[in-house]
Amino acid sequence: MNAYARLEQRFARLSALGDASGILGWDQQTTMPLGAADRRSEQMATLAVLSHEILTAPETGDLLGAAEQSATELERWQRANLREMRRDHAHATALPAELVEARSKAGSRCEIAWRQARADADFNAVAPLLAEVLTVERAAGEAKGAALGLSPYDALLDGYDPGMRQARIDPLFADLLAELPGLLAEVLDRQASRGPALPLDGPFPTDIQKSIGQRLMGVVGFDATRGRLDISTHPFCGGATDDVRITTRYDEGDFSTALMGVLHESGHALYEQGRPRDWLAQPVSSARGMTMHESQSLIFEMQACRSRPFIAYLAPLLREAFGRSGPAWEAENIFRAYTHVEPGFIRVDADEVTYPAHILLRYGMETALIAGDIGVADIPGAWNDGMKELLGLDVPNARLGCLQDIHWHSGSFGYFPTYTLGAMAAAQLFAAARDAEPELMEAIGRGDFTPMLRWLRIHIHGKGSLLTTDELLTEATGAPLDSLVYRVHLRARYLG
Amino acid sequence: MNAYARLEQRFARLSALGDASGILGWDQQTTMPLGAADRRSEQMATLAVLSHEILTAPETGDLLGAAEQSATELERWQRANLREMRRDHAHATALPAELVEARSKAGSRCEIAWRQARADADFNAVAPLLAEVLTVERAAGEAKGAALGLSPYDALLDGYDPGMRQARIDPLFADLLAELPGLLAEVLDRQASRGPALPLDGPFPTDIQKSIGQRLMGVVGFDATRGRLDISTHPFCGGATDDVRITTRYDEGDFSTALMGVLHESGHALYEQGRPRDWLAQPVSSARGMTMHESQSLIFEMQACRSRPFIAYLAPLLREAFGRSGPAWEAENIFRAYTHVEPGFIRVDADEVTYPAHILLRYGMETALIAGDIGVADIPGAWNDGMKELLGLDVPNARLGCLQDIHWHSGSFGYFPTYTLGAMAAAQLFAAARDAEPELMEAIGRGDFTPMLRWLRIHIHGKGSLLTTDELLTEATGAPLDSLVYRVHLRARYLG
Repeated sequence: MNAYARLEQRFARLSALGDASGILGWDQQTTMPLGAADRRSEQMATLAVLSHEILTAPETGDLLGAAEQSATELERWQRANLREMRRDHAHATALPAELVEARSKAGSRCEIAWRQARADADFNAVAPLLAEVLTVERAAGEAKGAALGLSPYDALLDGYDPGMRQARIDPLFADLLAELPGLLAEVLDRQASRGPALPLDGPFPTDIQKSIGQRLMGVVGFDATRGRLDISTHPFCGGATDDVRITTRYDEGDFSTALMGVLHESGHALYEQGRPRDWLAQPVSSARGMTMHESQSLIFEMQACRSRPFIAYLAPLLREAFGRSGPAWEAENIFRAYTHVEPGFIRVDADEVTYPAHILLRYGMETALIAGDIGVADIPGAWNDGMKELLGLDVPNARLGCLQDIHWHSGSFGYFPTYTLGAMAAAQLFAAARDAEPELMEAIGRGDFTPMLRWLRIHIHGKGSLLTTDELLTEATGAPLDSLVYRVHLRARYLG
Repeated sequence: MNAYARLEQRFARLSALGDASGILGWDQQTTMPLGAADRRSEQMATLAVLSHEILTAPETGDLLGAAEQSATELERWQRANLREMRRDHAHATALPAELVEARSKAGSRCEIAWRQARADADFNAVAPLLAEVLTVERAAGEAKGAALGLSPYDALLDGYDPGMRQARIDPLFADLLAELPGLLAEVLDRQASRGPALPLDGPFPTDIQKSIGQRLMGVVGFDATRGRLDISTHPFCGGATDDVRITTRYDEGDFSTALMGVLHESGHALYEQGRPRDWLAQPVSSARGMTMHESQSLIFEMQACRSRPFIAYLAPLLREAFGRSGPAWEAENIFRAYTHVEPGFIRVDADEVTYPAHILLRYGMETALIAGDIGVADIPGAWNDGMKELLGLDVPNARLGCLQDIHWHSGSFGYFPTYTLGAMAAAQLFAAARDAEPELMEAIGRGDFTPMLRWLRIHIHGKGSLLTTDELLTEATGAPLDSLVYRVHLRARYLG
């Protein structure tokens, strides 16, 4: 067996271990009894350590070298697979074992303290632990950067979104920053002149919400023989290969959060279910990165499912399921409710127009934190100033401010920008799909996502990690990632 | 770090991998979508192969040798732990890798074919695959026997019940065989003269059955912060350390199968939840073997929970939960229903008096199959002759006969006797516990299992694998495993 074939065996084993961790992680958030937490941490850590040992074993490096020597004998997908193996190896070997352990410990400790600090709105309670996290993440960025030839922030970003760079993001975000304040003011003016949407009054029983969610999962193309819908405090898409599990949480006073959440997670799930089957256990079958992943959740949640045609399809389903009628339950009012814009403190509750402001704030701060231009003590002030400047809001306390997100406290720096880069990519892909499949919007209006999903399967899902993000977008849409289509989309939907 | 300490690290890793497999196995039977089956097999196989590699690595053998050289420096529990490590290692290294793979494949193939063959009552459809299973299991028994100095059957038995031997079982089962036919005839006579119990008519809604089951789990001492109750086709106790998950299935026409099943699995679960906490990730903390494990399920299901005092406690709960009243729902009638004896074809539906006959039949056949005294073609005839002889029944088809159990078809030879050995041990332990804790039965009559559980925690659960089965029973009851107390128990309950 040659070096490349032996690498495929090794990475198939890593894939199975990753899948096992995925199911254990899902279980931890949906099912596990509380008293099992310590042992579950041991199980997860053991799987992580074994994977790391396999990936960083000297033999893996030797095999990679040998396979690269004779890469010309490989076919296109094999070469891309080998490139992704090398990428995984480079990230794993870049950090000394002590730093891997220090990252894990600092993140765990800070995350636990953060839960209490957030409840108490007490930033000082978590600041020393967050400072530790920042120290080890800077060190990780430097070590990875040295190995990969990248700046520390780019090296961290690359862990979430392969190939994405700060120099690529900055002009995209500058375009947004130039346009958003004016756009927001115009949207709010227009909305004020129209008056608010009529309220959609509850209660909405959980079992009915669940059955609508499952029905719509089927409508968008989710394969229920290879996945599930469950409940968790923090909604996510997880699980394993051919076993893609999404979660939501139900509020009997508001059906739309769970419903749009299910559609959002279904977009992630469809990407996972559509990975290239010939390569399922290999790195090249993975989703391309977090920007593309978020593009798939948002192309369903924001592009397709907040469109007037889809809401016209949805409205009678909602009226029937909840036994409601009257003007509030007409499609146009539901559309207005679903596209209501209002600056607020909390990112995960933000509407489509104000969401990017939350990301611009965090991106500016986390790049400065990793670069050492600001420190942990500067976070509350910088946060509150940014919210005032971007959204005109006075943050009343840290729970509604810099303590709201888990990301930094668990050690995730470089993740935030992918939310808004994903929104850009979603707009760009949706426009291209509509051009390529003229019946796409009309089909969505009938609850038929076949044309849309077919296009995404061919152009995105089935490509796995064959291409870079920009290559993927260029082949699919004719252009690399850009903010223009996204900005046009926002103007059309909110001012059109 | 010395050799013994390094072994503890290795076995802690094996424990975490075993726990991960336990959760994945639970998920497969309760939660997993069907389309995930292939990938789940990959995940389970990968964890099994990694565990096997760690256990059989040359370094593990070297460390065992070194630790045994200086075993005098170890304390009692450490020495027992080292002995159990050596046992695990001996079993794992006894089989060449090809035989491990052949066993796994033959068992999987035959098990799949068996499901269909059982539905079709067609033994011939599965016979060739069962012959393959028997061939590799004989080979495994021979290879393990050669390494462990045991006969092939004893070597297989030792894999389920460490230290148990055919020569130990034969006289115990001969005692039963001498007594059971006469006992059964007497019980049936007596029952006929009394007439049948009044019927307990349904329906019994699943949610009420579940809430009674959960309540009784709490009553017997199950710690719900470290375990769960769920639904599966085949009830089991599984999961992981500090996360013990039992399952049942509900029949709305009959509440007692699920209820007694939950109490049975709770007995298994209490053993797992009571393992010695100082040694949780080490082999010495494991339950002693399948005989002792079954003794714990049966001491709850059969000894305690089919006793008149417990049923007197249970009857008003049932009346209230199901909203029933009248003579059928008096404790004495429920006791009669719960102790009804009737020869039948299916082992898992058998009552306490006829159950051992099903085991004597299988034990006799599987020892002969492994010894080569009979072959697969002889199974249906031997089965049907045995059922006629032991229970006076004419088996109408193989679904109700030799195709009813998964064990042989999945490759489990040497497991069956532990069911009845467990019943003997349960009777012996319950008698000793009642002697030691005079208030035990009276407490059970109040739904207070504290005295019983306290005694089991000290004498059985908390001992893990410190002792052999016979040492454990001798320390707890004054005598090694014996059939006498069990036979006395059957006479007392059914003829008393």
